[in-house]
Amino acid sequence: MIREEVLKKGKAAQQAAKRLAVLDTNIKNEALHKMAQAIVQKSAEILRANEKDMENGKKNGLSQAMLDRLLLTEDRLEDMAEGLRALAALPDPVGRVEGIWKRPNGLEVGRVRVPLGVIGMIYESRPNVTVDAAGLCLKTGNAVLLRGGSEAFHSNQALTWVIAHAAQTAGVPEGAIQLVETTDREAVEVMLTMNQYLDVLIPRGGAGLIQHVVNNATVPVIETGVGNCHTYVDKDADLDKALDIAINAKVQRPGVCNAMETLLVHRDVAPDFLPRFYDKISQFDVELRGCEESRKIVPEMKAATEEDWATEYLDLILAVKVVGSTEEAIDHIHTYGTKHSEAIITENYTTARKFLQTVDAAAVYVNASTRFTDGYEFGFGAEIGISTQKLHARGPMGPEQLTTFKYLIYGNGEIRE
Amino acid sequence: MIREEVLKKGKAAQQAAKRLAVLDTNIKNEALHKMAQAIVQKSAEILRANEKDMENGKKNGLSQAMLDRLLLTEDRLEDMAEGLRALAALPDPVGRVEGIWKRPNGLEVGRVRVPLGVIGMIYESRPNVTVDAAGLCLKTGNAVLLRGGSEAFHSNQALTWVIAHAAQTAGVPEGAIQLVETTDREAVEVMLTMNQYLDVLIPRGGAGLIQHVVNNATVPVIETGVGNCHTYVDKDADLDKALDIAINAKVQRPGVCNAMETLLVHRDVAPDFLPRFYDKISQFDVELRGCEESRKIVPEMKAATEEDWATEYLDLILAVKVVGSTEEAIDHIHTYGTKHSEAIITENYTTARKFLQTVDAAAVYVNASTRFTDGYEFGFGAEIGISTQKLHARGPMGPEQLTTFKYLIYGNGEIRE
Repeated sequence: MIREEVLKKGKAAQQAAKRLAVLDTNIKNEALHKMAQAIVQKSAEILRANEKDMENGKKNGLSQAMLDRLLLTEDRLEDMAEGLRALAALPDPVGRVEGIWKRPNGLEVGRVRVPLGVIGMIYESRPNVTVDAAGLCLKTGNAVLLRGGSEAFHSNQALTWVIAHAAQTAGVPEGAIQLVETTDREAVEVMLTMNQYLDVLIPRGGAGLIQHVVNNATVPVIETGVGNCHTYVDKDADLDKALDIAINAKVQRPGVCNAMETLLVHRDVAPDFLPRFYDKISQFDVELRGCEESRKIVPEMKAATEEDWATEYLDLILAVKVVGSTEEAIDHIHTYGTKHSEAIITENYTTARKFLQTVDAAAVYVNASTRFTDGYEFGFGAEIGISTQKLHARGPMGPEQLTTFKYLIYGNGEIRE
Repeated sequence: MIREEVLKKGKAAQQAAKRLAVLDTNIKNEALHKMAQAIVQKSAEILRANEKDMENGKKNGLSQAMLDRLLLTEDRLEDMAEGLRALAALPDPVGRVEGIWKRPNGLEVGRVRVPLGVIGMIYESRPNVTVDAAGLCLKTGNAVLLRGGSEAFHSNQALTWVIAHAAQTAGVPEGAIQLVETTDREAVEVMLTMNQYLDVLIPRGGAGLIQHVVNNATVPVIETGVGNCHTYVDKDADLDKALDIAINAKVQRPGVCNAMETLLVHRDVAPDFLPRFYDKISQFDVELRGCEESRKIVPEMKAATEEDWATEYLDLILAVKVVGSTEEAIDHIHTYGTKHSEAIITENYTTARKFLQTVDAAAVYVNASTRFTDGYEFGFGAEIGISTQKLHARGPMGPEQLTTFKYLIYGNGEIRE
């Protein structure tokens, strides 16, 4: 039964995708505005549904942090609506001609951006992902099949109902925005192998969810998530900048993938830098776990183990290591990093250039906080997640990353000899 | 044992990839020339190894067609060498800056093309894939782990040995070009889940191989292969052009993925076109399987079944269907096509535009043969396969499609508020 239900929605999404692919930009933008309006107008309904989820969450003993992520308020709904309006104002990537060239035989070959087709989103936690993903998929001419976390079931249901109907009043085809309306895990398993209807799967949530999708999907996946990010304070660093940046990268929002997890400090500046850093970061209740050498300078730090270098804490914990050179810092990053966001703090031109060229990560920084790895901060105007793989999309995924291209070939009877 | 051996090669490839990523273009191009030279100089050795494969192939009862694909000659080796020299002459996609923009807070964000890292190639049949793939991966700064078909084992071994050593003499790191030297299937299974060392898998070969890789890999896959391509002769077609193009798309090389498998003809021109087409294509021993309506016009055709519409024959067989409109043709293509290459023959501007915009395929043609879907014909200078998925690469994959990008962020102490 669940299998049939999910397949039916997949088929409807594919039908809708054909029409969405050629829908005028004006209609898509009008739909985004109507969706925003509907969220505000129907806020009472949505908040009632959210109350059910909150009650269930309390009964099921969700943590205070999880309940807070689940909670919807008038303000949070207004933020979602504002996000949709902002999407409407962005340029439409669909139809952009990326090039057109003439071949020696007279054929003209052009490359134009088109939607991916049908996107499957499998996510946990915050209900705002429902609205963000639906809006971004619509903007880029894709149909979306949403599968949110069971704890947000009623909220997601209400939100999807409201925005899907609002979109239709603007001329968006039915089936463009759909939610898999069951908390049964079987629905996820069906989505993972629904190659006939899904063009891509984007999982968002904890490492367990993402690994499950990567390991079991036959549909192409864009992996998101894990960020074991480093900040390397070079011997030629401006230590004041280093201090501000390292503190920001750790404490400004420790629970996200672009927060720093390990601080690397060059041996020459460690005696100067580490005590200052320790004094300042201690104000934020951060637990430090240092290598042997760093603990000789700041004995208050706990001892780090091998495991610490490989851990994404997502918490107010930081590993600290003294290194002897930029090469050693880069080697450490390549050994333990997850190719997400890596920063060097230095005033030395050649060292900065070497770090930028050599470090293999989605985002490589000089003299800035890794916390900027984000679709909005990069100027994409929106974000559906941060890819940690190299295929198709790398780093923050904005509207362009939800499109692909096709070749258009203009001929006059050409045949192949 | 096999598992350890493959993992060891994967690790060596990853080490090599780090150095390859920053290798100068000049060194890569010099290596390509040395590889070309070595293939010619060591041709006697390579041909001896190929003789072993040919003997085994005959013993094992390989078909004449398969033996021909397996056979190496001085001429074929010279073609491989020429392919490498042509690669050396192409621009290097690595390091190309695709954009750099300033954010309101002063940060400068740039996007630059970088290699994917380590590419796993799993392929069958022709040993030239060994050289083509190794050359293209080197050109684009990627390490490659090759796993060819067992029937070409000795040829692939000799070729890989020759080119890998030649590349090293130019300064390419050891481990950049490696072959999995076993015919045991277990090696493939290890590669499919070797996420810690492989960034992408590209399978090339029959549908069975490709489906096995897609269904069992946890490493991201670029799917290649199946092409159920159509040519639609519109009511406003120039029937002379239509005749030449349709014949070419079917018979010029029927065994490849961009050959036509179904001909769609508008009802208004079918009585005129089909008899002429039948007369001409009959000279090439093509078996025609027509719909009921088309058989009323050309009764000599066999009757097509539902299965024929969905079949990629890769042979001198063609399905023929009469349709009532461009919409019906597009619907047929969307129902049975594989999103590879689709062509319309028409002189009508609006009809052509509609077909180009609406048909969802990697390559959409007006008035030309689908046989042009090819990296060389599109002007990429090389090709590692034709992607039939939408993620990352679509259609012919040239050098650019073997790269990804990273963001470089230039700051001056910026932190996130």
